Formats: sequence, C-alpha cells, structure tokens
Amino acid sequence: MIKFIENGSVTSPLGFTAAGICGSVKPSNKTKRDIALISSDCVCNSAALFTKNLVKSSAIAVTQRNISDGKAQAVIANSGNANTCNADGEAKAERMCELAAEALNIDKNNVIVASTGVIGQPIPIEPFEISVPKLGKIMSKDGGTDAAEAIMTTDTIKKEAAVSFELGGKTVTIGAIAKGSGMIHINMGTMLSFVSTDAAVSAEMLKAALTEAADRSYNMVSVDGDTSTNDTLAILANGKAGNKEITEKNDDYKTFTEALTRLCKSMARKLAGDGEGATKLLVCKVSGAKTVVEAKGVAKSVICSSLVKSAMFGSDANWGRVLCAIGYSGCDVDISRVNVAFESKEGTVEVCKNGAGIDFSEEKAKKVLLEKEIDIIVNLNDGDCCAEAYGCDLTYDYVKINGDYRT
Amino acid sequence: MIKFIENGSVTSPLGFTAAGICGSVKPSNKTKRDIALISSDCVCNSAALFTKNLVKSSAIAVTQRNISDGKAQAVIANSGNANTCNADGEAKAERMCELAAEALNIDKNNVIVASTGVIGQPIPIEPFEISVPKLGKIMSKDGGTDAAEAIMTTDTIKKEAAVSFELGGKTVTIGAIAKGSGMIHINMGTMLSFVSTDAAVSAEMLKAALTEAADRSYNMVSVDGDTSTNDTLAILANGKAGNKEITEKNDDYKTFTEALTRLCKSMARKLAGDGEGATKLLVCKVSGAKTVVEAKGVAKSVICSSLVKSAMFGSDANWGRVLCAIGYSGCDVDISRVNVAFESKEGTVEVCKNGAGIDFSEEKAKKVLLEKEIDIIVNLNDGDCCAEAYGCDLTYDYVKINGDYRT
Repeated sequence: MIKFIENGSVTSPLGFTAAGICGSVKPSNKTKRDIALISSDCVCNSAALFTKNLVKSSAIAVTQRNISDGKAQAVIANSGNANTCNADGEAKAERMCELAAEALNIDKNNVIVASTGVIGQPIPIEPFEISVPKLGKIMSKDGGTDAAEAIMTTDTIKKEAAVSFELGGKTVTIGAIAKGSGMIHINMGTMLSFVSTDAAVSAEMLKAALTEAADRSYNMVSVDGDTSTNDTLAILANGKAGNKEITEKNDDYKTFTEALTRLCKSMARKLAGDGEGATKLLVCKVSGAKTVVEAKGVAKSVICSSLVKSAMFGSDANWGRVLCAIGYSGCDVDISRVNVAFESKEGTVEVCKNGAGIDFSEEKAKKVLLEKEIDIIVNLNDGDCCAEAYGCDLTYDYVKINGDYRT
Repeated sequence: MIKFIENGSVTSPLGFTAAGICGSVKPSNKTKRDIALISSDCVCNSAALFTKNLVKSSAIAVTQRNISDGKAQAVIANSGNANTCNADGEAKAERMCELAAEALNIDKNNVIVASTGVIGQPIPIEPFEISVPKLGKIMSKDGGTDAAEAIMTTDTIKKEAAVSFELGGKTVTIGAIAKGSGMIHINMGTMLSFVSTDAAVSAEMLKAALTEAADRSYNMVSVDGDTSTNDTLAILANGKAGNKEITEKNDDYKTFTEALTRLCKSMARKLAGDGEGATKLLVCKVSGAKTVVEAKGVAKSVICSSLVKSAMFGSDANWGRVLCAIGYSGCDVDISRVNVAFESKEGTVEVCKNGAGIDFSEEKAKKVLLEKEIDIIVNLNDGDCCAEAYGCDLTYDYVKINGDYRT
C-alpha cells in the first residue's frame, strides 16, 4: 500500500535534514529564500538524470563527477542564477560544494550541486560564502519546505511530497522537492528535483528505478517546449529504513519503483499545473495505442500544441486542434478510428468519434472546460497501450512572465 | 535581374484573372470576401505540395487527384471552414470544383480546390452554389487582391506579390497570394498559397522548382509549432511568356527557381510577420554550419522557442534563451564556438562570443529590439553553410485570438 504523507517533503525519510535561506544570489532579491541545503546523516547511494541540452549548467559537470562513484551525502542548490554559459562557472560550482561540505563536515566529493535562474550572467560566489555556513547551522527535519521554497523561480507554489510503503516488513519513505515552471519540456519535464529515501537500494538499481519513474512522470511534462540547460533529477538513498538492500530487479525493486513513480507523477502534475502563467492543469490520457511509444508520442503532441493550450485557456471545446496535433505527432495513427473526449470533475463530454465530429452540448462542454484540471481523453482504438502527458494552458501571463524575465 | 512588381499579385502574369466574393461560408460573416477563384485562359502545367499532417482537409484529396496528370487551369478556395474531419467533405470539395468549372467553362478535373478555417464543422455548400456563378462573371486582371482577401482568416494583411525577370530574352512573371497566420509550422509554413506564372515549364520541373523554393521559404516559417491540416502550395504555369519550355535543370531552370524562391521568401516573411498576434518579424540567420541541414535545424529551433519569442516581444536581449534553443536543436554544435548578435535597422548588438556572454549596452540592445523586424544572427564558426528561418514574437494577442477562435 503506497500512501502519501500529509505535509511530506524531502526531509520525511529517516536521516534527512534540510534548510533554505535568503542569500540574495540575485542582488535584487532581499527576502525570498534562494539557497537550499539537503543532507543525509550518512553517505547515500545516489543516481541522477540530467538535461539533454548541449548547453549545460556548470553545476551539472561538477555533479556528474561527484556522483560518478554512485555516492552522495548532500545537495546544495540555488535559484536566482543558472550558472550557465560563464567562463568560471565550474570553479564556482566546485566552491559551492566545498562550502556545503565544510558546513556539514562531510566530503566535498559527496555533494550534488544545482543552480536555476537566468542564463549567461556570472554567478556571484559571495552570497554562498556568507550564507552556506549559516545554512549548516539551521538544518532540521522541518527544513524541507524551506529548501523547496529556495529553489523556486517563477513557481507560484512550493512543490514537495512524500510517500511511504512497506518493503519486507519495514516502513520505507521517499520524499521529494521540485521546481518548475518555465523552460520545461519533455526530457526532462523539470528544472530541478531532489528525491530522498531511507530505503536501502544500490546505486545501479537507483538509476534504473529513477529512469523508469522519470519516463512516466517528469519526462512527460511540457510547459513551453523549451528544454532547459539545468535540468537535474537526483536521488539519495541512505538505507536507514533497514530493508534488505535492493540490488536486482526483484519484487522489492518493483514496489520501490512503483512508489517512486507515484511520487514523481504527483510532482509532475504539480509542475504542469504551476507552469508559467498557467490557469489549468491539462492531462492527455491516450489509450488504445499499438505501442507505448506511440501512446506517449500522441499524448506529448497534444499537450505541446499551442493551439490546444490556447483553446483550453479559453475553455473552448475545439477538438479539431486535438485531432490536428495527433495528425502531426509523427505516430502511425488511423485517424478514422480516433475518439476524443474532454473530462473534468464536472463530467465527460464526447466530441469526436471515428475521426469526425459528433453533436455535443456546447453548454456542457463549457462547464467541463471551466474547471482547473482537464483530462483530454484520446482513444486510438488500435491496441492496448496507453500513456499520460502533463501540461498546462497557454495564457496572457505566460507571455507577460517571459517578455521581460531578466529585469 | 529579378524585380519585384509594384502591387504585384497572382494576376500579374499574362493570362491570369481572379476574383473574390463574400459568400458567407461562415454564416456570421456578412462582409468579408471568403471565396476566391483564380483562372488561366488556357490549361497550365501544374504542381503542388501539401501538409504532412495525417489529418488532411478533404479538399487535398480532390486536388491530388485533379493534378495527378500535371495539369490544372483554375483554383477555387475559401476561408471560414477547413472542410476537414467531416464525413461528406470530399463530395463537397468535388462539387466546389464542378461549380468553378461551370462558371469558367473549363474541365472540372483541372480545378485545384482548397479550404481554410475551423476544423470539424460540416462545410455548407449553398454559399458556393450561389456565389461561384457570380464569381465567374467578375473575373479580372485586378481581381488578385480580392482573391488574396478571400483566403484570409485571422490574417491582418493581404499577402500578395509578383516578380519579373528574363528567360532567353522573354519577360517572365511569377505572382502569388498566400494566407497565414496561425497553425503554422515548418513543413509547410503556410495554410494556403497559390502561385501563377506565364513561364513555360514542364510539370516535372515545376514540382522540382516549387520544392526547392518551399524548402528555403514556406518550410522555414513557424508561428506556433502547429502543422495545419490544410496546407496547400500550388503553382500553375501557362507558358504565355513565350520562353523555351523548361524541361530539364538547365540555366533557365536555375533562374526560374531563383526567382520563385525570392518570391516565396518574400511571402514567407509576410506570413511570419503577420503571425497571429505578432508585433515583430523575427528572422534567424545561421552561418558557419557544417551542413545546410544543421544550419536549418539551428535556425528552426531558435525561431520556434516560446521563450525566445516571448523575450523578443518584451524587447529583452535574453541571448541565453537563444543559446539554449541551439543546445536542444538536436544538431551537433560546438557551443564553445557560437556567437550571437541581434540586428535591426537600429544597428547590431553582439551579445555572446564563443558560447559565453560578453558585455554589451542594454540601452543599445533595447533600441535594436524595439524595432519591428529583428534578425537573430548566429555564427556556429564550424563550416560554410547557412540558412534562414522566419517567425514572430509570442504575444498576449496570440493567446487571445486562439483562446476562443470558434466563437
């Protein structure tokens, strides 16, 4: 039984503490927390996934070196500056790790570092010199939520959650924080997410489980089609739960991966629903596909369509745009078999059968689409595979937020 | 010498006439012209390219049959309804051709038909029964501009142009009309465009020239990343100029293709600059690429980025987003060699050298970016190939126009 923990966060698993502080990484920010520290009281097995963008934050190069041995003990992360496209970025990312290691009295090679914010402006190191020692002193079991705040940029809500479940009679917990909310696209659908667990899992199995979970969650989120330069999804497992270590793809691995996927999906929904300027969470649920690849391809294409996103903003049941996006998805779909419906807690309205429009009540459709969480239901009627993709509507505020982000 | 003709249109070449009329295809439209007819006074060689979307307007199936012999004599087109995803769409498209043929006293199998507008609503045939006979009576040399109006949907300006040049001592003219302006993406960057010429060119060479020209113009336009269901680019060549017929890829073919490309590029710029809600034309000019494919890939990726488009709307020199879009283009680029500059008639401002930011005057950058036509200059410093892509900024109005298009 996988249960979501009330007010769960990255500090919910045994042995993890965290803190967040305002360090004014962006000089104009005088109040919002912008440096986060997460720590385990012992060395963890660790794995991470990164952006596929060729332009990468300097922090990613340092993190890749530091976790190449499958070990990590802490995460330092900041908002306000992406530490990307700057000549001395790696030296500064290294220094961030050193400062975290000194503050926590751990090995600097066991620190994961991540940054998010504006690209191409040198990151100032002074805020870290001043604030990271302070962070070390305020680490606590309640600090996950401050860490979640510290990695927010244009996010409007903190993103944190935790699940618990049993593994061989032991209670195991997985917690996570994440930040969105622009420059988000399939692969990976987030800029930063840090996951902690007290389960005992080998680094190799952590990587496998994280990849499976990400493929069904973070990798199925799109806000604006832009793949960030800083995406980092990292997991630390300290083994404090006392379960038998997962070292192969056995039943425990399956249970762990299922719980991790549930957690990551809940975070993916939070990311999509809090996309820049978004007023609505859109979930495209595709069934009846010949293959999972096809189901994913169709779901992503629909969720990425600017025209579908704009129609949803206007609560307009313009199903032709859904069909159009299916048509250019690149997937081998028999359009004459496709059914489309819109669904929310106000009910379901079928709008397209066998690739052609059917009569429906515009009034009911409006009611369904005025809700804050809309499912776009697509049945390809051509097989047994299914997939979900997560996105949001395209709004005036997306343009406003991104029209002058640097100032 | 290729010259643009003042007030040129699809009726500029010898032997072509056209007209546009208000037929109320969309019942609520009582004033705007929405049915267009273009005709040559003799049968033409013809070629056409169509959308790659699996969901296609019924008009496309009919046009494909009618030009399969490389011959055509007229075009009938409408706005207000896309004739897509409707059970009886083909029969209605056939009927549109019959009506055009009767009005012009030509063979119905020589009629090209195209529709644009909302998807999934049955197209009413009565407006055509009433208006096409009238259209036949008002065809004229000045009618190109009315035809251009009749195919507009959310376009704010009519798109028409013509060029003239010499082929073997004969003056040859090519004219065109087109409509945008949403649901526009690479392959093809338009919903509808009709090109006429009095040059003598075989159907096979027309297809080759049209493909070359489209690859450097319409296929390099993106407004919103949505590939339409109705894209049709058709050319008719009636041979009235008296040049020696182009039947192989000789010097005349090259001259003709160059002129056609120039014309199509000018139309592509019009389409991009009049993208839905656009306030600015963006042209991404990539040079120094190892291959043309790579140059195109980078140019398209930049022009399609929602974040780049939003930044340009805000006149914000956020070059990090340009670099980011290059990074996820999928092209094999050495980021550490990339230079980026912004250019307009106010001058040039270099913002990135060797993949990293350089000092620049924000004041000058603002001045450059407040202009209506912005070039984003990217030098990959890795070869001799180049390409251009055409797009526009992302604005509040894009969202407004598409939030409730159907009503």
